[in-house]
Amino acid sequence: MNKNNYCVIMAGGVGSRFWPMSKTSFPKQFHDVLGIGRTLIQMTYDRFLAICPKENILVVTNEIYKDLVLAQIPDMQSSQVLTEPCMRNTAPCIAYANHKIEAKNPNANIIVAPSDHLVMKEPEFVKIITLALEEATETTNLVTLGIKPTRPDTGYGYIRFKDQESPRDNKVKEVETFVEKPNLETAESYLVDGNYYWNSGIFIWSLNNIQKEFAKHLPRIHEAFLEGKDKYFTAEEEGFIQEVYPKCENISIDYGIMEKAQKVSVVLSNFGWSDLGTWGSLYTHLDKDDNGNGIVGKNLIYDSKENIIFNNNSNKLTVIQGLDNYIVVDTKDSLLICKRDSEQMIKKFVGDVKKLGGDFA
Amino acid sequence: MNKNNYCVIMAGGVGSRFWPMSKTSFPKQFHDVLGIGRTLIQMTYDRFLAICPKENILVVTNEIYKDLVLAQIPDMQSSQVLTEPCMRNTAPCIAYANHKIEAKNPNANIIVAPSDHLVMKEPEFVKIITLALEEATETTNLVTLGIKPTRPDTGYGYIRFKDQESPRDNKVKEVETFVEKPNLETAESYLVDGNYYWNSGIFIWSLNNIQKEFAKHLPRIHEAFLEGKDKYFTAEEEGFIQEVYPKCENISIDYGIMEKAQKVSVVLSNFGWSDLGTWGSLYTHLDKDDNGNGIVGKNLIYDSKENIIFNNNSNKLTVIQGLDNYIVVDTKDSLLICKRDSEQMIKKFVGDVKKLGGDFA
Repeated sequence: MNKNNYCVIMAGGVGSRFWPMSKTSFPKQFHDVLGIGRTLIQMTYDRFLAICPKENILVVTNEIYKDLVLAQIPDMQSSQVLTEPCMRNTAPCIAYANHKIEAKNPNANIIVAPSDHLVMKEPEFVKIITLALEEATETTNLVTLGIKPTRPDTGYGYIRFKDQESPRDNKVKEVETFVEKPNLETAESYLVDGNYYWNSGIFIWSLNNIQKEFAKHLPRIHEAFLEGKDKYFTAEEEGFIQEVYPKCENISIDYGIMEKAQKVSVVLSNFGWSDLGTWGSLYTHLDKDDNGNGIVGKNLIYDSKENIIFNNNSNKLTVIQGLDNYIVVDTKDSLLICKRDSEQMIKKFVGDVKKLGGDFA
Repeated sequence: MNKNNYCVIMAGGVGSRFWPMSKTSFPKQFHDVLGIGRTLIQMTYDRFLAICPKENILVVTNEIYKDLVLAQIPDMQSSQVLTEPCMRNTAPCIAYANHKIEAKNPNANIIVAPSDHLVMKEPEFVKIITLALEEATETTNLVTLGIKPTRPDTGYGYIRFKDQESPRDNKVKEVETFVEKPNLETAESYLVDGNYYWNSGIFIWSLNNIQKEFAKHLPRIHEAFLEGKDKYFTAEEEGFIQEVYPKCENISIDYGIMEKAQKVSVVLSNFGWSDLGTWGSLYTHLDKDDNGNGIVGKNLIYDSKENIIFNNNSNKLTVIQGLDNYIVVDTKDSLLICKRDSEQMIKKFVGDVKKLGGDFA
């Protein structure tokens, strides 16, 4: 295993579309959403153990989640959990990780991935990452993973690539352009076209290359973290980050770097990926009963079909009769019952719940 | 207040039609089913404080509920709670209370009532009980309360009375016959007839008269409890009851005594009574929101109407969207969602839940 390989797991999100399972004090990535005994961040960590030494895996998250991370990944040292004092999107989060890694190993190669994605075919994932690391180290390109689309999804950004023969199994292509979430008609045309893949939000690069790109496209963020180069892994790090982080621009790595960089490669991937962005996408990955109910938790179901039923309290029983096509989420402090085709309303519910006060949202 | 007046509150039932709110370890009568801050047994106790001295109010219940009774009615002494070592229907329960009362006061007049009924018009209830006590003490009749029917209910037994002019406000009539739960057509004819009232299960009699009727119609039960006459209110009472109670016939007071007694009077009553026997009957007594949702508990409701939503955990929030005509009951260890018109299936659910083991039912 290459000791220069590092993984950065981004775990700062709140996942409010999954309320009430996911809430500010206990977001989605820390839940066993499939009811299989491992949380999403645990599965992400496990996946990267095949790719880099465990001491090279870092988690970047909000400081309020540090204890949750260390509890769920007991192998991880406190210094491997980078804490953000406030939410500042992905560019500052990645910059912080870059500079901290640089303090240890200027020859690092880095895989950056969200903590809450699902990968069904792990061997294929490892192969793809291996190709991506080759590309990232043998060229000066930034590398992203594109996911072969299986439906005209309007919830993802797309990557259009140049369809030329290429080395590395003909799977690594030059990115022509990143495109925003399309409408349905456009998404359907992308699916037919074949040269559009979903933007997974998983990135691979050499430290050297990504630092150059930050210096070029996000110089203020770059220089802010550079100033602390003698402070990483010291007692001064926390105070430095507390001061510098809130001043950073709130910008994503996609807008800030990827769309501006001259040379970006995409690895065409198909490893059973889901960003589990909605209850609907979770539903497709849950085991179903004979009536198409996707269920997590102890239950008795009568005359009901195609519901999503989520209850992660092993001491609680769900009994449902005569219900079709609903989302039922039962947590310690909230119960949600809503139609599957109304799940876009959950954001409104969360807004209203927040107005009630308390720790419900 | 007449010191010879005694009240016997029967609180041994499990109320499985109200599962999961009501369960074996915490039955319906101990719940604040209306969300008004008092449980059903507390309201029953409060109601009788206007009728007899508080030390003359007895509760008969299963021994597993004794602590619940004393916790909910702190004014009650331990000796006022009569415990049944096993379920034996209402006749043995009433016989036990009769003999225990006889050990203290052979001149007692007794009102027997279930612990889980609702009375909306308490002043009228007190008037009716006063008439019933007059009848029970000035005649040798047993007395029962009949409730003026407001709909052709097939869930109650009915009392047919002789429609003759009578003293006591013309409200106390001679019972002609007790009739079983009718079918809908028959129930409709009863409603038109006018001489059929619902059998409330509330009884009033002098100790002297009811003891004579027990001796005549249920002599084995009568003699069994008579044998212990020197043991009531002594250290030997518990052991005696442990031995004698399980041997008693499992029979209701209706079948065992009321239907066989020669002289029974019914007081025609209309005091806003409900036996709260079903979620449907509870629904009619819950406050409703503008869309006819009867709700207990903290909630946010969207696009939903005519549901029964019951959550007695003040720290839990219910959010419901797009749901009509359902029963949603959320308790610490079970969640039930079922159609209102399928509530007769709840008994089946409870049977299935019991097969799972644990303390769910």
